[in-house]
Amino acid sequence: MSQLTRRTVLGGAVTASAAAMMGEFSWMSSARAEAPQIGKQAPNFYRYKVGDTEVSVVSDGVVRFKLPPTFVANVPTEEVKKQLAANFIDTEIFNNTYTPIVVNTGKNLVVIDTGFGEAGIETSKGTAGNFINNLSAAGIDPKAVDTVIISHFHGDHVNGLLRKDNSVAFPNAAIKVPAKEHKYWMDDGEMSKASGSERLAGLFKNNRRIFGNPEIAKRVQPYEPGKEIVSGITAVETNGHSLGHNSQVVSSGNKSLFVQGDVTHVPYLFARNPGWHLMFDQDPQQAEATRRKVYDMLAAEKMMVQGFHYPFPAAAYIEKTPTGYREHMVQWSSTL
Amino acid sequence: MSQLTRRTVLGGAVTASAAAMMGEFSWMSSARAEAPQIGKQAPNFYRYKVGDTEVSVVSDGVVRFKLPPTFVANVPTEEVKKQLAANFIDTEIFNNTYTPIVVNTGKNLVVIDTGFGEAGIETSKGTAGNFINNLSAAGIDPKAVDTVIISHFHGDHVNGLLRKDNSVAFPNAAIKVPAKEHKYWMDDGEMSKASGSERLAGLFKNNRRIFGNPEIAKRVQPYEPGKEIVSGITAVETNGHSLGHNSQVVSSGNKSLFVQGDVTHVPYLFARNPGWHLMFDQDPQQAEATRRKVYDMLAAEKMMVQGFHYPFPAAAYIEKTPTGYREHMVQWSSTL
Repeated sequence: MSQLTRRTVLGGAVTASAAAMMGEFSWMSSARAEAPQIGKQAPNFYRYKVGDTEVSVVSDGVVRFKLPPTFVANVPTEEVKKQLAANFIDTEIFNNTYTPIVVNTGKNLVVIDTGFGEAGIETSKGTAGNFINNLSAAGIDPKAVDTVIISHFHGDHVNGLLRKDNSVAFPNAAIKVPAKEHKYWMDDGEMSKASGSERLAGLFKNNRRIFGNPEIAKRVQPYEPGKEIVSGITAVETNGHSLGHNSQVVSSGNKSLFVQGDVTHVPYLFARNPGWHLMFDQDPQQAEATRRKVYDMLAAEKMMVQGFHYPFPAAAYIEKTPTGYREHMVQWSSTL
Repeated sequence: MSQLTRRTVLGGAVTASAAAMMGEFSWMSSARAEAPQIGKQAPNFYRYKVGDTEVSVVSDGVVRFKLPPTFVANVPTEEVKKQLAANFIDTEIFNNTYTPIVVNTGKNLVVIDTGFGEAGIETSKGTAGNFINNLSAAGIDPKAVDTVIISHFHGDHVNGLLRKDNSVAFPNAAIKVPAKEHKYWMDDGEMSKASGSERLAGLFKNNRRIFGNPEIAKRVQPYEPGKEIVSGITAVETNGHSLGHNSQVVSSGNKSLFVQGDVTHVPYLFARNPGWHLMFDQDPQQAEATRRKVYDMLAAEKMMVQGFHYPFPAAAYIEKTPTGYREHMVQWSSTL
């Protein structure tokens, strides 16, 4: 074998025509049509067990946008692009992915965070808002869900509570929300204080639309950190990304899973560099302190983490490194 | 938030009973049954484009076995286990995965390597031999396949040429095999020389069973390295793992994919440590030289690699490191 380069590897690419080769095979019908390409991705779900509990990871999809120059608020774009390139990730168009999960404890069928909702299908031209459709591919009936747990009140986590016609997406479910988060976004004084920020004002408006809906409002049950939300799922206060952000620990037997919400955004930027501040962090200093505390724990305990913005299927283990942390994405298992 | 440990995180786990909480929700039917767990993994396929060519990655499954002490022939087991543990991978039971692909160039529908075949379902108790079933889940009809390309003559790559009843799995396909590999395994002199090795003797026997089958034999077309096998798919000689091992380059427009076969086994052992010799390498020195040459090229050209024993969906980019290479698994895209 001579030295391999793209040129030598592809050097033979024009030496033979497929048509000429096809003529050699007498057992093939000359009238057989070429097979059409399929043009559709596999359904976006993945399953694993945590002890006796079954977790279904169900993607809401992706939104692709031009990397904002302030995506990492405290780091120059060139530095961010360097890190993306080093990980073979596009440096111009950012793929923002959204991955709710469904937890079946054997007693409760629980959705954690909800994606953009069907309305998001239209605004994203079909790339996001697919949680409900993918749930169906995964064999899960929204009517069978008895509990929805919300980590925090950003649109990609709460908008999926409503269908496109404004009916509730999970009609038989209690909607468990972090008490502090709910209080903040429903507080008129806080809303008026935030009116100077277009983004915050928009979030207040969106949260009033969602949680002001009477069918949502009557299902809402605030939860407190440190307490079980349902049997086997415990809330953990992880403020910073939003002021009342909570994560959850799913446990069964001696196995545990940390469902982090947005403690970090994509791991290849924000776990590797815990001091980097995502532009959407409401209190960046607190978010960083939370991130370091949670990731120190994940590394020390070798506890698996499920990350809403991690690449699908969005589950990983965390290693502590001299400069931060490194994620080890869980290897796909072809069986449960 | 106080210091996070498994204990404090789970401290609240016994404070409330789910049943008591459920009683609060008057809109829920008390007679509603608990949702059963689904207990089935997602179908194991994944799609992407290489230029205008559509690639479907279709898993054959996994075989789990106790890590053999000589798995890496020239490295002590303890060193291997250390590397596995550092990557959060089980150190006792090894998950050996098998991932053929299907390439639709628009003109040809091509299967590259075939897995264990249906007979493997029985011997693996269902965990492997699932390529044909997963093809069906992926919407691909084996009868529409016009070309099967084989990288080398090991059972996990060639056994899927036959169905359980010994009929051909791809009845309308030419079977393209590396000329040197085919000659070696069909040569009686080589077979007799190899009779002292139980493993080699078994391989000769298996290859005579497969390629001696008249329906297979009449479809076999040897291919030569450096030449196109079908339009857009070029053979590359990558000897060592077996004496006539070949890889393939799929190209369309200015995009290319290196389909490596077994140039490395799992990347987290053998790409990270190119000097480590897999127990199944027939010529370990040549295999290592090939590995270094191919991986230097992949890193220099930033060419995507599809690896038969990589974790599903088994596609990655390769970075050169001071001690070897590091794989960057391709991020799952929820769209094509």
